[in-house]
Amino acid sequence: MNPETAAPRDLSEVVLGVDIGGTNTKFGYVDRNGRCIAKSAMPTCSDQPPGVFFSRLKDHSDLLRKSLPGRIELAGIGIGAPNANYRRATIEHPPNISWEYVDVRSELEKHYSIPVAVTNDANAAALGEMLFGAAKGMKDFIIITLGTGLGSGIVTNGELVYGADGFAGEIGHTVVDPKGRQCGCGKLGCLETYCSATGLCRTVQELICNSTEPSRLRHISFHELDARMVSDAAMNGDTLALKAFDITGSILGMKLADSVAHLSPEAIILFGGLAAAGDLIFKPTRLSLEQHLFPVFRNKVKLLNSSLDEADAAVLGAGALIWNLLTRR
Amino acid sequence: MNPETAAPRDLSEVVLGVDIGGTNTKFGYVDRNGRCIAKSAMPTCSDQPPGVFFSRLKDHSDLLRKSLPGRIELAGIGIGAPNANYRRATIEHPPNISWEYVDVRSELEKHYSIPVAVTNDANAAALGEMLFGAAKGMKDFIIITLGTGLGSGIVTNGELVYGADGFAGEIGHTVVDPKGRQCGCGKLGCLETYCSATGLCRTVQELICNSTEPSRLRHISFHELDARMVSDAAMNGDTLALKAFDITGSILGMKLADSVAHLSPEAIILFGGLAAAGDLIFKPTRLSLEQHLFPVFRNKVKLLNSSLDEADAAVLGAGALIWNLLTRR
Repeated sequence: MNPETAAPRDLSEVVLGVDIGGTNTKFGYVDRNGRCIAKSAMPTCSDQPPGVFFSRLKDHSDLLRKSLPGRIELAGIGIGAPNANYRRATIEHPPNISWEYVDVRSELEKHYSIPVAVTNDANAAALGEMLFGAAKGMKDFIIITLGTGLGSGIVTNGELVYGADGFAGEIGHTVVDPKGRQCGCGKLGCLETYCSATGLCRTVQELICNSTEPSRLRHISFHELDARMVSDAAMNGDTLALKAFDITGSILGMKLADSVAHLSPEAIILFGGLAAAGDLIFKPTRLSLEQHLFPVFRNKVKLLNSSLDEADAAVLGAGALIWNLLTRR
Repeated sequence: MNPETAAPRDLSEVVLGVDIGGTNTKFGYVDRNGRCIAKSAMPTCSDQPPGVFFSRLKDHSDLLRKSLPGRIELAGIGIGAPNANYRRATIEHPPNISWEYVDVRSELEKHYSIPVAVTNDANAAALGEMLFGAAKGMKDFIIITLGTGLGSGIVTNGELVYGADGFAGEIGHTVVDPKGRQCGCGKLGCLETYCSATGLCRTVQELICNSTEPSRLRHISFHELDARMVSDAAMNGDTLALKAFDITGSILGMKLADSVAHLSPEAIILFGGLAAAGDLIFKPTRLSLEQHLFPVFRNKVKLLNSSLDEADAAVLGAGALIWNLLTRR
């Protein structure tokens, strides 16, 4: 018997996890234990047609595969992308990417004949946490990604919720104030206009104009301001910056209490740039969450930080998406 | 072969559906096609211990069973009750019932050795709609029961959402206004203080004091006022009553848009006394829902009236709860 084929088949099985972003696309090989055994990146170049992108992805990922020691069997491909639809395996009108409508399955079938799955980055992050991270073993939880916007992924009864049309998990577009801040989606007062990196900066500007509180942030234009500057100022005791975090957490906690009323999750996991601010965001969020919870849920819901390495999380999430599908078959 | 035992077993199988209310308990035998083949009721008498109640239930339901023609096999018992916990099979601190904590499974095991399941009335209603009603064949939907309060039941991926601790589906306690109306749960501004039979009456009182609009409802005390009087007035063109319905629907639609952002349901089903007001509540709710929906969900989510006969719905729902469990085994 040939020793190569005699090796246990699943020991060498990996999936390709791909995270398509507006500027760059990260990809890597993920084993079934959630180790990213090799990773790389390439520019997305969405000014070129999707067909060109997927050809380049095939070339780049094949090259990375060749660099791996030993025999590797590719079991599937998982893709995370903005506005991705799991049910249709499509990407539809993604923000910050020039493509209109991409039939991801058809594009990949030109190059591969293995299982493929597509979802948005927050859903991929939820599956990453469930298979490999802070939600391991949980059957009911919510992940909130606090980046430029606010994304979310919901798991109930051990399964990701895609909903009737595949777009469930848009907690960022629940309403905080129907006459509130203009949102990129066209509505007013969406949660992500308050609770996200951008939302935090908008709150700083609001405090600058509404109060006379001295702050180093008064010297920075809105265009230049980013969440990191606000958290740096807060860590140095800037009271206006601290207040901005308190307001952000207080709104987030109140709306998360609504999410708990719907779903009774075991945990809510915060992920992304703003979550990295630690207690600055966790403390006011936890306080407001408990305060607004229906009594039966009080002191039960864990508010956790993601346990995935942020550098690998997107690729791990996309890998978890396809591993989750493969292991259920 | 004895002709009685030769009959196909499942033709004669029924479940006992029980709906425990503050004053009365309804019960009936439900076949697997959702027909309530016999029903009855008895006073709940919660001033007596739960053990007495379940003995009486056994006696009354056995009596009803004897009145049925032919041989009937009892396959299981489903119970709907306020503050019922599916995971623990308990009733915990139910409002309007004097019991503190009832271990329903233990109580029933004294009399029966068949499968038993317990849930709250809104979850039972959701299963009733899924197995026998307006949600037949749907995998993602929400039911909203508009009675004295606002109850809800959520189905995702074809399964009822109980959440980590069995109490999911408390949409009535999401926050409309954190400084708003006092709720029975101890919080302020819960959805059910605005959108329920009681909420509608509170809105009428608010309009009476805030406006000078003439209305026949000005002659009725808050204590005497009920939702039926408001809908009768509205149907007769009373502008204040019409306005109260518009406000109720507008708040309900806005908050249901949040529910859709979470779950992307195929349909939202309204059930109960207030839903019976038809267009008076459906029109403003639908309008506000569409207006507050994240664009990707617009013109997709059906807003439906329950298709179950209201007189049988609670018993059918409790029956569906146990049928759902039996058919999955």
